[in-house]
Amino acid sequence: MATLPHTQRLAQQLEFIVVVDRLKQVLRQTSLIDGSRRENSAEHSWHLATMALVLAEYVPAEVDLLRVLKMLLVHDIIEIEAGDTFAFDVAANLDKAAREQLAADLLFGMLPPDLQSDLQSLWIEFERNTTVEAQFANALDRLQPLLHNYHNQGGTWRRHGITRQQVLQRMRPIQTGAPQLWPFVLSVIDESCAAGYIRPDPEADF
Amino acid sequence: MATLPHTQRLAQQLEFIVVVDRLKQVLRQTSLIDGSRRENSAEHSWHLATMALVLAEYVPAEVDLLRVLKMLLVHDIIEIEAGDTFAFDVAANLDKAAREQLAADLLFGMLPPDLQSDLQSLWIEFERNTTVEAQFANALDRLQPLLHNYHNQGGTWRRHGITRQQVLQRMRPIQTGAPQLWPFVLSVIDESCAAGYIRPDPEADF
Repeated sequence: MATLPHTQRLAQQLEFIVVVDRLKQVLRQTSLIDGSRRENSAEHSWHLATMALVLAEYVPAEVDLLRVLKMLLVHDIIEIEAGDTFAFDVAANLDKAAREQLAADLLFGMLPPDLQSDLQSLWIEFERNTTVEAQFANALDRLQPLLHNYHNQGGTWRRHGITRQQVLQRMRPIQTGAPQLWPFVLSVIDESCAAGYIRPDPEADF
Repeated sequence: MATLPHTQRLAQQLEFIVVVDRLKQVLRQTSLIDGSRRENSAEHSWHLATMALVLAEYVPAEVDLLRVLKMLLVHDIIEIEAGDTFAFDVAANLDKAAREQLAADLLFGMLPPDLQSDLQSLWIEFERNTTVEAQFANALDRLQPLLHNYHNQGGTWRRHGITRQQVLQRMRPIQTGAPQLWPFVLSVIDESCAAGYIRPDPEADF
């Protein structure tokens, strides 16, 4: 759009808006709730942000909902360059941080410096997962695929033979970020084990 | 999920979260920026909310960004029941309001009363389009398909033989909600006319 008459600042903002459209083409491992197709990271981000509106009361502390929403909107943008790394893929997770840092510099770096700083800080906050807002955002990012897998007969758990311990470990951020939802999570995991969606833990080695 | 142990309130919240997953399957007329497929309303909503983060400075007044984001997240949820009504389809727009009102009562009515009221009010505010926040949200809802159509060689404009006057009228909410972006919008329309993406206006009838 180089020929259109507008400021350099607006040109950068619009270019970013055009490029992030590609997040709609980054496919996650998780399927839609009805199992009809895989979910993409843009619609996933919308779902998490909408969940935040409905579940904010389960955060134990005062929560800045605006920051939660901003974080959820931008938390996956780096996947446009870095791809979606499947949670249970150990090898792919080894260099995940480095790949994602490069992607963040590239993508947020398209913006004017003040906006780059704002949005990249949100992404870093989400990744560090130390604030109440980040912990709630991360809790939602775990809860959503739990609901999806439960509703589509095990989804990625069954496809990859994931065990109860692996799921429990993966879901721990919910216990931190939205502890009042933890009993519900445990009940979904128990039901999913009983239904054969989640593999039982191997017998202890003794 | 009726057998899982949780409160009636949480059950309603989770049921809503599961049902709104269907917004990912509501297809819009507009295609992705690369033209590869039609866009769905969930990823569209994510895109608008992300645009709000980047373009908020173009609102002339003080704007409550949290309300803008909430509005953008929920503004299309009624389409799960009412469908997406193509902007330039005159017949389908005749009963649009009634269909959407029913859909809103049904979908937001799944939530506990306080949350129903919160979310349905946001949808009404977006539709009434009288507050600064709603006007900015509506401006983004027009700007995004403009960018998409421009980038995919005319998209819905060309497919449906839309004229310059029709596009101008459709884009007017941008002039109200983000007036500083209006010169840019006019330049995109002019370029799109020159490129044959938008049909010239018929000669005046005299």
